[in-house]
Amino acid sequence: MAHDITLSLAQAETLSRRILHHAGFGAGHVEAITKSVVAAQRDECHSHGLYRLLGIVETANMGGLDPQAVPEVIDQAPGIVRVDARYGSSLLAFEQGLAPLKEKAERNGIAVLAINHCFHFSALWSEVEALSAMGLAGLAMNPTHAFVAPAGGVRALLGTNPFAFSWPRPGGTPYTFDFATSVVARGEIELHRRAGESIPESWALDNQGQPTTDPATALDGAMLTFGGHKGSALSTMIELLAGPLIGDALSHETQAANEEGTGRPCHGELVIALSPKAFLGEQSEAGLSHAERLFEEMLGQGARLPSKRRFEARARSLEAGVSIPAALYRDLVALSGEGGRPD
Amino acid sequence: MAHDITLSLAQAETLSRRILHHAGFGAGHVEAITKSVVAAQRDECHSHGLYRLLGIVETANMGGLDPQAVPEVIDQAPGIVRVDARYGSSLLAFEQGLAPLKEKAERNGIAVLAINHCFHFSALWSEVEALSAMGLAGLAMNPTHAFVAPAGGVRALLGTNPFAFSWPRPGGTPYTFDFATSVVARGEIELHRRAGESIPESWALDNQGQPTTDPATALDGAMLTFGGHKGSALSTMIELLAGPLIGDALSHETQAANEEGTGRPCHGELVIALSPKAFLGEQSEAGLSHAERLFEEMLGQGARLPSKRRFEARARSLEAGVSIPAALYRDLVALSGEGGRPD
Repeated sequence: MAHDITLSLAQAETLSRRILHHAGFGAGHVEAITKSVVAAQRDECHSHGLYRLLGIVETANMGGLDPQAVPEVIDQAPGIVRVDARYGSSLLAFEQGLAPLKEKAERNGIAVLAINHCFHFSALWSEVEALSAMGLAGLAMNPTHAFVAPAGGVRALLGTNPFAFSWPRPGGTPYTFDFATSVVARGEIELHRRAGESIPESWALDNQGQPTTDPATALDGAMLTFGGHKGSALSTMIELLAGPLIGDALSHETQAANEEGTGRPCHGELVIALSPKAFLGEQSEAGLSHAERLFEEMLGQGARLPSKRRFEARARSLEAGVSIPAALYRDLVALSGEGGRPD
Repeated sequence: MAHDITLSLAQAETLSRRILHHAGFGAGHVEAITKSVVAAQRDECHSHGLYRLLGIVETANMGGLDPQAVPEVIDQAPGIVRVDARYGSSLLAFEQGLAPLKEKAERNGIAVLAINHCFHFSALWSEVEALSAMGLAGLAMNPTHAFVAPAGGVRALLGTNPFAFSWPRPGGTPYTFDFATSVVARGEIELHRRAGESIPESWALDNQGQPTTDPATALDGAMLTFGGHKGSALSTMIELLAGPLIGDALSHETQAANEEGTGRPCHGELVIALSPKAFLGEQSEAGLSHAERLFEEMLGQGARLPSKRRFEARARSLEAGVSIPAALYRDLVALSGEGGRPD
């Protein structure tokens, strides 16, 4: 096993701040992105953790996002807060939209945060968990790039379009899920390619629309949706609600950043918040207790709740810090423009 | 092939009205239920069509729903209309909630219709299509009875929990999907049992929690969710949002009506409406046109849009009426308390 470096959460934050500051990110972005990547590292979601800083900085250097963008918060309607991220990271836009979203959801019962023109690299669970931590139920979704064929189709058109949900649980970790509507994450196919392993036939098509078990061919072709036509329908709904409904791009209209600076990685995101207090009034605590019966029944028959592994990792990291490969640590330190271990 | 009886849509409506009136349903219920079953028959959704009247009347006779229930419409919050169906059919409750839902969605951008204590037998597509026909995007979901094991579990706990979505398309049929979160509809397993055919191993568990290919054993055990843990997560979300969030039952707390009158078939339903006009203002038509690009891309690569078969059936039925098996027709006429063919 390769050598790992262990950092406290505070050290991980300092390292992230140095990297982002050195890459020219504005102070608000530095804090919002640091919070996100350290939370992911803490929960051992490695691909969204400190590793992700390499890609963020590269995208900024290629002109794929504006590291100094100042989000514009727009009171679109009594139930809609819209934040134009102005081609900056989605995370600062989300943070700035969170308070008005909460206020609208608590007043109306349900409200939407629509984020436009954002560079989106983070997992959605941290956003829906920001809502459940405030006692709200939250949903979030966004398009990505055209990596996935619709059911019955032959070419990449839909994004990997993640869908996340979190439900507040009194006195414990929330009920949270966050899944890609592709059959697996794109990174999973990349891992198989690196390992020289074939992939199951149900994961992807080649560029002629035929099933393939070769990961490189799959990455050049189209992934498939989870659950056949049902997953494809759900992914299409995400395209519509987090795209045209909010005046933003479909997955096939976006592209990863590139060296020519012509990539268009930015798109929209839709977050829906529902307030149990607005639905149930004085009965809202009873409603949350009622939901616990479902979780008890699940656990009682041996089913796991989603995010269990992540919550266990969180508890470990809060105790003992986070570990990353030494090679990644060296790359990150080099990117920070400073030598030595962060204090 | 068995003999079929062809009825005009008007004849089908008359037959349905007679049956429901004879069974003691109030005038509002007669109209709302007739509209639903004839629409399903028109779209050749046979299990939700005229056939369904047999089950509705039987449930009413067993005391599983109140055929005279008067729904109560409650202005719960600026973004929530709640309708207490008072143990009557969901359909009249939906109809009475529709105008306030539209008004709230157009004012706020997003709004919810929460229906409580309803007997729910209809497909959700007709409800989300009522929204898209008014220019709104609509989602609908509800729990059912405990037929489905959660991912990693061994016993039935979740419902078959349908999830439906409709998006308005200018000048054409909407983009609509409506699927069960179980891997197949329960009726599909029943059809295999009647035909003496085995089912795929991925559909269900026996009552010991082991995979089974025997349909009778499956019906006595637990169905599985579509898409593994992702479908299970989606189904759980539906339990929470259309159950405890609105102060109503989880699927494992409901039961089909029974002869002893102790069944508890009633539960809740959640409908969400989003207004493109509120999101986009003067750009809302451009937004809907933008969405068309996605559908064009899908069709251009040979993918079908969901509900295509249903819309084709609709066009046929509007032209030529609907056909039902002669035996079903006889059963329905007997239930109508009158002889002869409806005019």
